[in-house]
Amino acid sequence: MSGIWGKNLKLSIFGESHGKGIGIVINGLPAGLELDFELIDKEMKRRLPGRDNISTKRKESDSFEIISGYFNKNTTGTPLCVIIPNEDKKSQDYDKIRELLRPGHADYTGYMKYKGFSDYRGGGHFSGRLTAPLVFAGAIAKQILMKNNIVIGSHILSIGHVQDDYFDLAQVDINTINKINTKEFPVINEEKGRKMIELIQEVKSEQDSIGGTIEAAILNLKAGIGDPFFDSVESKLSHLLFSIPGVKGVEFGRGFEITKLKGSQANDQYYIQNEEIKTYTNNNGGILGGITNGMPVIFRVGIKPTPSIGLKQKTVNIKAMENVEIKIDGRHDPCIIPRAVPVVEAVSGLAVLDLIMEHGGNFIG
Amino acid sequence: MSGIWGKNLKLSIFGESHGKGIGIVINGLPAGLELDFELIDKEMKRRLPGRDNISTKRKESDSFEIISGYFNKNTTGTPLCVIIPNEDKKSQDYDKIRELLRPGHADYTGYMKYKGFSDYRGGGHFSGRLTAPLVFAGAIAKQILMKNNIVIGSHILSIGHVQDDYFDLAQVDINTINKINTKEFPVINEEKGRKMIELIQEVKSEQDSIGGTIEAAILNLKAGIGDPFFDSVESKLSHLLFSIPGVKGVEFGRGFEITKLKGSQANDQYYIQNEEIKTYTNNNGGILGGITNGMPVIFRVGIKPTPSIGLKQKTVNIKAMENVEIKIDGRHDPCIIPRAVPVVEAVSGLAVLDLIMEHGGNFIG
Amino acid sequence: MSGIWGKNLKLSIFGESHGKGIGIVINGLPAGLELDFELIDKEMKRRLPGRDNISTKRKESDSFEIISGYFNKNTTGTPLCVIIPNEDKKSQDYDKIRELLRPGHADYTGYMKYKGFSDYRGGGHFSGRLTAPLVFAGAIAKQILMKNNIVIGSHILSIGHVQDDYFDLAQVDINTINKINTKEFPVINEEKGRKMIELIQEVKSEQDSIGGTIEAAILNLKAGIGDPFFDSVESKLSHLLFSIPGVKGVEFGRGFEITKLKGSQANDQYYIQNEEIKTYTNNNGGILGGITNGMPVIFRVGIKPTPSIGLKQKTVNIKAMENVEIKIDGRHDPCIIPRAVPVVEAVSGLAVLDLIMEHGGNFIG
Amino acid sequence: MSGIWGKNLKLSIFGESHGKGIGIVINGLPAGLELDFELIDKEMKRRLPGRDNISTKRKESDSFEIISGYFNKNTTGTPLCVIIPNEDKKSQDYDKIRELLRPGHADYTGYMKYKGFSDYRGGGHFSGRLTAPLVFAGAIAKQILMKNNIVIGSHILSIGHVQDDYFDLAQVDINTINKINTKEFPVINEEKGRKMIELIQEVKSEQDSIGGTIEAAILNLKAGIGDPFFDSVESKLSHLLFSIPGVKGVEFGRGFEITKLKGSQANDQYYIQNEEIKTYTNNNGGILGGITNGMPVIFRVGIKPTPSIGLKQKTVNIKAMENVEIKIDGRHDPCIIPRAVPVVEAVSGLAVLDLIMEHGGNFIG
Repeated sequence: MSGIWGKNLKLSIFGESHGKGIGIVINGLPAGLELDFELIDKEMKRRLPGRDNISTKRKESDSFEIISGYFNKNTTGTPLCVIIPNEDKKSQDYDKIRELLRPGHADYTGYMKYKGFSDYRGGGHFSGRLTAPLVFAGAIAKQILMKNNIVIGSHILSIGHVQDDYFDLAQVDINTINKINTKEFPVINEEKGRKMIELIQEVKSEQDSIGGTIEAAILNLKAGIGDPFFDSVESKLSHLLFSIPGVKGVEFGRGFEITKLKGSQANDQYYIQNEEIKTYTNNNGGILGGITNGMPVIFRVGIKPTPSIGLKQKTVNIKAMENVEIKIDGRHDPCIIPRAVPVVEAVSGLAVLDLIMEHGGNFIG
Repeated sequence: MSGIWGKNLKLSIFGESHGKGIGIVINGLPAGLELDFELIDKEMKRRLPGRDNISTKRKESDSFEIISGYFNKNTTGTPLCVIIPNEDKKSQDYDKIRELLRPGHADYTGYMKYKGFSDYRGGGHFSGRLTAPLVFAGAIAKQILMKNNIVIGSHILSIGHVQDDYFDLAQVDINTINKINTKEFPVINEEKGRKMIELIQEVKSEQDSIGGTIEAAILNLKAGIGDPFFDSVESKLSHLLFSIPGVKGVEFGRGFEITKLKGSQANDQYYIQNEEIKTYTNNNGGILGGITNGMPVIFRVGIKPTPSIGLKQKTVNIKAMENVEIKIDGRHDPCIIPRAVPVVEAVSGLAVLDLIMEHGGNFIG
Repeated sequence: MSGIWGKNLKLSIFGESHGKGIGIVINGLPAGLELDFELIDKEMKRRLPGRDNISTKRKESDSFEIISGYFNKNTTGTPLCVIIPNEDKKSQDYDKIRELLRPGHADYTGYMKYKGFSDYRGGGHFSGRLTAPLVFAGAIAKQILMKNNIVIGSHILSIGHVQDDYFDLAQVDINTINKINTKEFPVINEEKGRKMIELIQEVKSEQDSIGGTIEAAILNLKAGIGDPFFDSVESKLSHLLFSIPGVKGVEFGRGFEITKLKGSQANDQYYIQNEEIKTYTNNNGGILGGITNGMPVIFRVGIKPTPSIGLKQKTVNIKAMENVEIKIDGRHDPCIIPRAVPVVEAVSGLAVLDLIMEHGGNFIG
Repeated sequence: MSGIWGKNLKLSIFGESHGKGIGIVINGLPAGLELDFELIDKEMKRRLPGRDNISTKRKESDSFEIISGYFNKNTTGTPLCVIIPNEDKKSQDYDKIRELLRPGHADYTGYMKYKGFSDYRGGGHFSGRLTAPLVFAGAIAKQILMKNNIVIGSHILSIGHVQDDYFDLAQVDINTINKINTKEFPVINEEKGRKMIELIQEVKSEQDSIGGTIEAAILNLKAGIGDPFFDSVESKLSHLLFSIPGVKGVEFGRGFEITKLKGSQANDQYYIQNEEIKTYTNNNGGILGGITNGMPVIFRVGIKPTPSIGLKQKTVNIKAMENVEIKIDGRHDPCIIPRAVPVVEAVSGLAVLDLIMEHGGNFIG
């Protein structure tokens, strides 16, 4: 029953999609940090719908208000609370289907967990909207990480069966990341990107939706971060990544593919380059024994298709306890992947910052 | 820097492969539980090497000694500490390659994290041997879960490219699990099982190793367990699963395959059966919004090939800081997957028990 | 660096005295609880200044706004966030003495911890105002506890040298509590209460302040709550009580007086009454080995005099690093004890609820 | 139900008085620390009974065995587990009074919490013996703190009504501490010390026991350590201090006496000395707003008389549920205070180290 995460950096999330607002309290930020609001805005906008014709028509401005922990243009070191008021709520959209369990959503599980008392409007606390405060917090994490030269970047690896090129696991560098970051639709292979957009428009026209994967890289993490038990880098990252609505798979390095390799192929052999220890390959995604080895940390996240679709589906009226059909109207994303990119980066930044803070040090100067 | 995990059930792990012993302290067990030592022994033996000619020749008897928390044939409710003394240690095997970083192992990352002070013998705290206390604790978790009718079962889904049949996600039941559990080499399709064993023997003869995947199912979890943020069932399970040495991927339900589906295919539509709400399919693996929906919880774990191989590999002498070659002698598993099966089940049991304890209740009577 | 507390009931506090607002996020509340706003208002008002001529002239209406976790007149089970906007702020009062460290306050320690970046206005995050959200949360805890028949009551035990009668440790009951609760100035002996008020007015006229003690009782806790290590009832209660600004001492049962007794006097001997095990005396304050024994849990809290006084004091200008004098104008409480009473009860209720939730169960119906 | 404590330094305690052994797992120790076994032995011996004729005749050698986390004369950085085997157990002493609740002990509360399944022999997990692993861990904490120039010292402030001199709160320094540390019976005023010993012998001859207080000082903590909410230095220290069996009161600085002062007397006024900010007095015991101010951190702990006395007492046979009398034979301390001194210092060291680690840094070199 907990909306709290973290050890050194502690988050406390709250809010429902159609309530007064959503927000987050961030504990453990260093004092004396001037927030980079340009970066925060940029990250928040990446998550916003309505930028193009492939996402929901809902307007979410996600304008935020910092309630505490920021004074005279600096973090105070005390808990920073931010609230994002809810606007453009169309609660009546949901009232009429209130008792109908939307397949693929948390309507039923939330009903069971909260005994029928959860806010059902717009998914309530389960809404993807709750990722907005995570992106806010993640932008601050990114800012602090960048001061320590640590960079996070990601691209859409696939939409349905359309597949982008993979990162070169051992070679991905700041140039790779910078190139992707300038793109509106972040893919390596733009031709594939166009096909992805076509596919999204196609499923949209069918009133259907489609899933996809995101591949992310974290650069310049020093060797020695993380724990064997029980806070491996993989454990920490996956814990937060699996909190993102819709994520059903997480893999590191070569991931599930590594299971098909022989040890002689999978092992990342070592060599010395400029007095530093490197590996020729990076099948382990920069993590051995739960601890970083100085190579890029690379992982992939699988996200299911948006459950809200216009097509007719079989479901149950939980009050009447009878089989019925449902057709979900309203404004929905045919594909959530593009909007999930900044969320994946945000929680990765938060997880990594928490891990690094374990080692103390000053993350400002 | 933490060897502690859990909220309601708290584990504290300790030990190094070639030190005096390894062990675990389990907090939060109910008082008055008579341990099922037959089950514990059975689970511990499943993890042991040397049962056949496809695993290491090392002998690990894993005889354990309960130090505290058990009195008059019952748990006392206070911390239960168990120690597994180390035997059959051949530390000299490791001394001669002490400064050579074994590719794929945590030698380098442990060296960096612990500044050269970690116990390098046999992997030290990173050793797969540390999973023995997890299996011990997991057996107790399983016993408690079984009293609540909750059952965990798993099979080897693949070794290299040889693939077993998948669980039928919506239909897997206690019969499926019981059938697998009687098998020495737990697969659904025995023909595939034989091919897996052949493959393992083949890579062994090549002094190489091979990876694989495990598919697990947790049956009879009631709907309503887990959290949207930040302790989703996926988060809790993946956190522990990624603490198992060698795990590089975790996926739930259809996992990464769901990303290729359309919403109309991926959504698990509802119907009523015997006054209970069920789904026709189970692509979400029994979890929606981080919370169980009453369907089987199903997930897959990808494990890399054993890093210890007899073949020559390039590496670095970290003391001399020069490029060298390494050939790892000693007794190693050509494939760790069969021995990882009980470990996957153990940590799943621990994660699920911790989640269920959130709801209070008496897990004994 | 943490504003988060609790295991089963988790609090996340935030805010500065003169910022936009202060608030708290409460995790772990059961779903389906209709909040008793009358009780919340009553508790909030008990903490408010300005009710009489013995407290500050500042107006704090402490009107609160529930942001999340409450829907259709019921808790949803998801995080409940409440914000109390700040009003009647006179920040200029503080600006002129900004660099002068107020003796007895956290100006210097906050400066050192937060490297000069903390919000210095009105004590910022250190302000006694931060106890308002605690009282809000505590009122909810009290409501839940009352449904389980658990009652918390307290009285002003002393102001300076003026001493109220003590609770009869073994006999304090619901009548004792109810009698105190009806009083504006909660003491057992009203004559002593009048003398306390006189003393407060006296120190006020001297532009000085005075400290005092509060004695509290928690009734009807069942035997068996709490832990030997490390979450004894005393540990849990003292942890939160020492978070209340100004608290410098906490004792249970006979407290420090028990140290002067012999074992034959201190031991609470047992007898059976109505099939229940009772003790003749209650020198241990209802707690043995960190666990409740079913007798009233009784403790005392010592609170220092308000540091803000009108008299001239020696201090340091931290910017100029020179010795100076300070005279604190503004509206301050000559004695904080009466307003601290509901705060002590609030955090006690929160600590006790967290402990009880350890045992699971339904705290609503 | 938790035997785990700490954030950066994490302890996991286990064991019962008459089981196989007691012990602790310490997480978060830096790698590369050569343990000062002389200091550990010294601290362990201070806790041992049988040094003189004022404590129990039981022999506890408290010889310990380090199971993990120590290799090649250095901490490895992984969990350090130490076990102290139990010897000289006379379990039959307890068997005959098994069903009789010893007044003042945790027999009844333990019975209720653990439903009759706790190990009743010698207090089981509630035994004062469990403080031995705390002293072991505390000695390591002390060693690390000393490398950072932080020193902890304490003296017996009172036994019954016999009172030692108080620390001079603002002046206590390393010389004060060193002088006390050389004494077998640590008091400031030796004349009072003799009277204390006389009193202890007197109550011993009466088959009774007596309580007392300990005053402790922590020197050279930098200003800026601790938190306003919810981990004030007072909260952290009191949490652990109240886990020591028998502790019923904790106060900081002037403690409960400060409640009788006016603000003009209680406030610690500032001045500059050698470019450092000091206070003339130290009524706040070195802590303001939960955070250290650089002055000595001073606190007092009140400990009740040993519950085990030879005198006849009224109690209950919990099986027969009838009123009976009990006379406790066996070897018991007439006064536990002298043996509690190193325990108070140990947990203080652990609490302080955990707080300091919050600020990162290297505690070894």
